[in-house]
Amino acid sequence: MTDRPAVAPAMRHRSMRDHNLGVVLGEVARRGTVSRAGLAVATGLTKSTVSSLVGELVAARLLVAEGRTGEGERGRPGIGLALDDGYVAGLGCEIGARRLAVAVVDLRGRTRVRLERVGSNRRPPAAVFGELAALAEAAERRAEAAGLTLVGAGLAIPGLLDHAAADRRCVVAAPNLGWRDVPLDPYLADLPPRTGLPMGVDNEANLAALGELRLGAGRVHPSFLVVTGEVGIGAGLVVGSGLYSGADGFAGELGHVVVVPGGAPCACGGRGCLETVAGLPALLRAAGLDPDGGLAPLLDALDRPGGDAAADAARAAVDEAAAGLALALTAAVHLLAPGLIVLGGTLAALGPVLVPRLEAALAAQVGALRGTSPPVTTSALGPDAAVLGAALGVVDAVLADPVRIMPA
Amino acid sequence: MTDRPAVAPAMRHRSMRDHNLGVVLGEVARRGTVSRAGLAVATGLTKSTVSSLVGELVAARLLVAEGRTGEGERGRPGIGLALDDGYVAGLGCEIGARRLAVAVVDLRGRTRVRLERVGSNRRPPAAVFGELAALAEAAERRAEAAGLTLVGAGLAIPGLLDHAAADRRCVVAAPNLGWRDVPLDPYLADLPPRTGLPMGVDNEANLAALGELRLGAGRVHPSFLVVTGEVGIGAGLVVGSGLYSGADGFAGELGHVVVVPGGAPCACGGRGCLETVAGLPALLRAAGLDPDGGLAPLLDALDRPGGDAAADAARAAVDEAAAGLALALTAAVHLLAPGLIVLGGTLAALGPVLVPRLEAALAAQVGALRGTSPPVTTSALGPDAAVLGAALGVVDAVLADPVRIMPA
Repeated sequence: MTDRPAVAPAMRHRSMRDHNLGVVLGEVARRGTVSRAGLAVATGLTKSTVSSLVGELVAARLLVAEGRTGEGERGRPGIGLALDDGYVAGLGCEIGARRLAVAVVDLRGRTRVRLERVGSNRRPPAAVFGELAALAEAAERRAEAAGLTLVGAGLAIPGLLDHAAADRRCVVAAPNLGWRDVPLDPYLADLPPRTGLPMGVDNEANLAALGELRLGAGRVHPSFLVVTGEVGIGAGLVVGSGLYSGADGFAGELGHVVVVPGGAPCACGGRGCLETVAGLPALLRAAGLDPDGGLAPLLDALDRPGGDAAADAARAAVDEAAAGLALALTAAVHLLAPGLIVLGGTLAALGPVLVPRLEAALAAQVGALRGTSPPVTTSALGPDAAVLGAALGVVDAVLADPVRIMPA
Repeated sequence: MTDRPAVAPAMRHRSMRDHNLGVVLGEVARRGTVSRAGLAVATGLTKSTVSSLVGELVAARLLVAEGRTGEGERGRPGIGLALDDGYVAGLGCEIGARRLAVAVVDLRGRTRVRLERVGSNRRPPAAVFGELAALAEAAERRAEAAGLTLVGAGLAIPGLLDHAAADRRCVVAAPNLGWRDVPLDPYLADLPPRTGLPMGVDNEANLAALGELRLGAGRVHPSFLVVTGEVGIGAGLVVGSGLYSGADGFAGELGHVVVVPGGAPCACGGRGCLETVAGLPALLRAAGLDPDGGLAPLLDALDRPGGDAAADAARAAVDEAAAGLALALTAAVHLLAPGLIVLGGTLAALGPVLVPRLEAALAAQVGALRGTSPPVTTSALGPDAAVLGAALGVVDAVLADPVRIMPA
């Protein structure tokens, strides 16, 4: 006897209604506006079943009648159904190395509230979560003033998370926050919307990938790698419109691929990692700039003419970072095979310098074997991809399984 | 409106029967022997539904009554049902750089026929496929003599495959066969069992991962990376008991991760790839041995005492290969996060030398961040993982969706 993966559950009638509520809602989400007759054609369900399901979804304020479509029978226009963007919303929160951010996103994926507080978070978790809770409460008040109800929240963290036990999630390591083995659930319970349901929490690169999937790169390609850069460097992978994060959620640690064998020590404990040449503090230090001084002085130096000592130092530092990124991305292309590479975070601001170098290096190193190499672009969402992804995760969960917020 | 992934199909009654046939068959596969009553409890289906589904599966010779279980009602033993290992079988074929192999596997995953022909396949595809067809026909005759019917076949190829069009699949590049842009379907149509159904074809590392999942490493860990080594080096990743092969099936090209920046040219067109230091010919050449002479002389040299020139050259070559493997595996652990690393193919034979070095290097480079680093083991299937995986793919498809070989 060979071992077999666990089998899918058998289907029965009760689960069919729950499943089909998600099918109908998903079809509306995909199409924007659609009539009951159009839904029956698209889903293969009978019109009476569709009407019953739509009635439940309208009552739950997930769908709303909106205008008319040309799809009705015998030339009569049908009543259009669309996602109700006036009630259900998701809250996204992000703890970055140098900022806190929160965002409220409605059922149609639009950002309705966005707040930020800039400052280092290399502090004890209690202090950071206290400030985050205050920021999230301010966002919740604004959302409620707009008639929205937060049905859940998601949190982005720049580190490795242990999700093994649902109520004992913890940060295994967040080197750029200085956190190790921090239990999260006591802090998460104090964040809005306090539904009593567990709050989603994930690595910032995974959530940035989800944000890109829904609002950015995902509109042009179903499979891509988002490289996020702030103090650290991470990567989130989307394959066939789904997030890939490995068996334990620890995949995509691009910043710790070795690009200088035997090189400088990294905050992770290893040597010669990509972060040691392309993380923002490393890059600034190599350019002779204040490692905590932000990106602006580096961009200024790059704008100066050649021969200027500061400009030459900046260019040399960026060259080294680009060479390191090219090596790490070569590994990522060969191991993960993304169709597109998106530079996010602070790396997006360096796009004009980095993109042509990375594309040339990838073409030389992977193009011959694969016949092609993935294009490199910069993120349109910039530093907000992760916080929006955290909020969209809540909205997506509702769209996929609306029963979770509906009466039984 | 945001873009949404495609929605799941709505459920209707016809598809429920088809789905539930797979649920019942999968439950038997998972448990070995089980009664109708046990199946009803495990699946949540009624006893009469289970009896009807079991009747169809017995008639199709997918299930067979076998002994009795202790699960019957009121203390009476129930009639045991098990997978029928006497009828349905899958054929696996492999084109390696230096051998052809075929295997027939029954519904319980047991190898019933295995044939091999050793010799270089760096020849025109028509000649290679002609020999493979003859070998596969010999295997089919032996299977038939044992009462087995081949319901499908799978083929393992050491290269990148384009699956985009179902009837125009091709080898994009197989550097170690010297093949590029080779259309496969005309050749596949000439291989047994000629059911008229498309034959499965995949990269050898992906199929080796499937073989390990069912018969090897998968019995101890649900998520692992198999490193396959012959002339080239590949990797197959299993996550949560499923194969991960990227958006286009091109993932896992571990052999082309750069481990010597700016290093020696590789057959792929890049420079400094892992294959240039750890592929078998590169390793033999670095040890001062015939690059086409196989592994035995290297193992002999490693067994000699230090101070012997041949032994020292062999040890230095293996040290360099181990250092390259450690760098590439560091990238793989950070990007893919496998729970276990399995050395297969020719690398398995070097396990006693490689395993301790790789484990020490990974502990130093990834252990601090992750709190742990994956163990490294050697494959128990050796060079047969891919050909068995190809055959098991056929069997798995039948177990997951038996309707494909049953009357409607």
